[in-house]
Amino acid sequence: MSETKDIITMAHGSGGQASHELMSRVFGKYFHNEILDALEDAAVLDMEAGKLAYSTDSFVVTPLFFKGGNIGKLCIAGTVNDLLMMGAEPKYLTCGFIIEEGFPIEDLDRIAATMAEEAAKAGVLIAAGDTKVVDGQGGLYINTSGIGIIPEGRAARAANMKKGDKIILSGNLGDHQACIYSARMGIENEIQSDCGVLKDITDALYGAGITPHTMRDVTRGGLGTILNELCKAAGCGMRIEESQIPVDDKVAGLAGILGLDPLYMANEGKMIAVVAEEDADKALEAMRQTEHGKNAAVIGTVTEDANVQLVTGLGGVRVLDVLYGEGLPRIC
Amino acid sequence: MSETKDIITMAHGSGGQASHELMSRVFGKYFHNEILDALEDAAVLDMEAGKLAYSTDSFVVTPLFFKGGNIGKLCIAGTVNDLLMMGAEPKYLTCGFIIEEGFPIEDLDRIAATMAEEAAKAGVLIAAGDTKVVDGQGGLYINTSGIGIIPEGRAARAANMKKGDKIILSGNLGDHQACIYSARMGIENEIQSDCGVLKDITDALYGAGITPHTMRDVTRGGLGTILNELCKAAGCGMRIEESQIPVDDKVAGLAGILGLDPLYMANEGKMIAVVAEEDADKALEAMRQTEHGKNAAVIGTVTEDANVQLVTGLGGVRVLDVLYGEGLPRIC
Repeated sequence: MSETKDIITMAHGSGGQASHELMSRVFGKYFHNEILDALEDAAVLDMEAGKLAYSTDSFVVTPLFFKGGNIGKLCIAGTVNDLLMMGAEPKYLTCGFIIEEGFPIEDLDRIAATMAEEAAKAGVLIAAGDTKVVDGQGGLYINTSGIGIIPEGRAARAANMKKGDKIILSGNLGDHQACIYSARMGIENEIQSDCGVLKDITDALYGAGITPHTMRDVTRGGLGTILNELCKAAGCGMRIEESQIPVDDKVAGLAGILGLDPLYMANEGKMIAVVAEEDADKALEAMRQTEHGKNAAVIGTVTEDANVQLVTGLGGVRVLDVLYGEGLPRIC
Repeated sequence: MSETKDIITMAHGSGGQASHELMSRVFGKYFHNEILDALEDAAVLDMEAGKLAYSTDSFVVTPLFFKGGNIGKLCIAGTVNDLLMMGAEPKYLTCGFIIEEGFPIEDLDRIAATMAEEAAKAGVLIAAGDTKVVDGQGGLYINTSGIGIIPEGRAARAANMKKGDKIILSGNLGDHQACIYSARMGIENEIQSDCGVLKDITDALYGAGITPHTMRDVTRGGLGTILNELCKAAGCGMRIEESQIPVDDKVAGLAGILGLDPLYMANEGKMIAVVAEEDADKALEAMRQTEHGKNAAVIGTVTEDANVQLVTGLGGVRVLDVLYGEGLPRIC
């Protein structure tokens, strides 16, 4: 199979014949749909009146393949999750590939296959794409943007948080970063990235009649940073119980050895939902019945303070600030 | 001014405090608007029912600054033009920055300022963004995606071309590629990139009561490739008069020396409009009254052939095929 040994060359980024061949050989094979097949400069989408969610994210993770996923899974899940967090039903994605010369076409094929699989799970169509080739050492970056439709009555916004609301975390912290760290440092363990589409959780919440006041996926910067961002945007505070935050033993062990704090470690398949106090039990139960939310826990309460306070495992209280600098570059 | 001598570090891509500082110091300064200021995971947009155009493009041009523009101008104009070509009114963009460590913040500031300026000209809001930092040698890639609204009654699609339709080219071919080539090879000349938003032309056409059957910006791969793509998508042919194709003397001279064919050279501010034969004169007149269309010319006719035929300057006829391989990498 000489075909699968081929690599990306500058010609594949020219917009000419070689680009067209790459399109049909790899992307066309997996991303075939009516909108893309029109071969226009832009997708044309029929939309009903209403609120759209619109987002973008670039993915530069290294290594490209890791336990529990690859950059293809990450780039679909990442943008889909951003839409889900606004209460939207994700509908369409665009994909922009920046490929370094020398990249194996076989790897691109695997990544595109994963993207198609993950897009199907999320119920989104890939509506437009672009490929550029740059000089380099055989690396790959992917940008995705996404559009979702926000059904009437949903309004998950930071500003909608109220004093007394409960903060529910969907599961263990730190799995993605621990997985990437382990891969880069050559540490053998069973830690898998949590990378995944959180639609099962948002469907379960709305299906149970819960309207979360806000939702946020817990990615770069970790829980500590995300909670601070939310409070800053909303002008409120939070009180978080450290003892309630789930962390896998293997991840806690690795974090301890490396001097990392799971509160600031990156995740790619975790979220928080902030719900009215009276909805908290029902929301927790709904989340725990999903694959991605089975370890969900109520971790704290919205307050009128101006900061995020952490009640530590020992019962002390300290301010939980945002991450300064990087835990680890090129993690997502 | 030590501030402007600063460079991008891995910490700026962490999602933590340093990322936030970069946001407010550079992006927040120029991209300030109500949607971005909500600091949510995705923009929330109120939309009327109708057809949306949706597109994406990544920009990897080197050098980042060139005569007539920079990567910031390019990344706005490129995606806006893709939307315009579908007959859309461009409304919202997302921007994804992938910045190599060591990139000067002063340059990022200049690029962001240009982006804001070009977005304002195009009448689009930057609705969402993302920044990643990667190891490297101080380079920059930008992805933009865009949404536009297609007003009722407009349908610029390849499939709408009809036999006898006239093909109007908006101006001189090859300026962008000639400019980038000159910059990279250190050739001193006055050639400027044509990089720009083509809204003046589409506004003029629709304003004159013309409904183009199809439009396409003439970018990577050049006119030859774009015409072939259109014909393939529509199942038609074209007959093009080489003598009618405008090329600037300086660009023609440079192309001659370097062995390049302007028919395959990249442009970043040129388009073709395919209009009904009876609309051609009016369309040409409308285009010629705009800044970006002042050198517009009718260059050919849609046929029922299966290929693009070029009537050469000497009166012979040859098949005009797509570009094979690359004219020049990292041109856009």
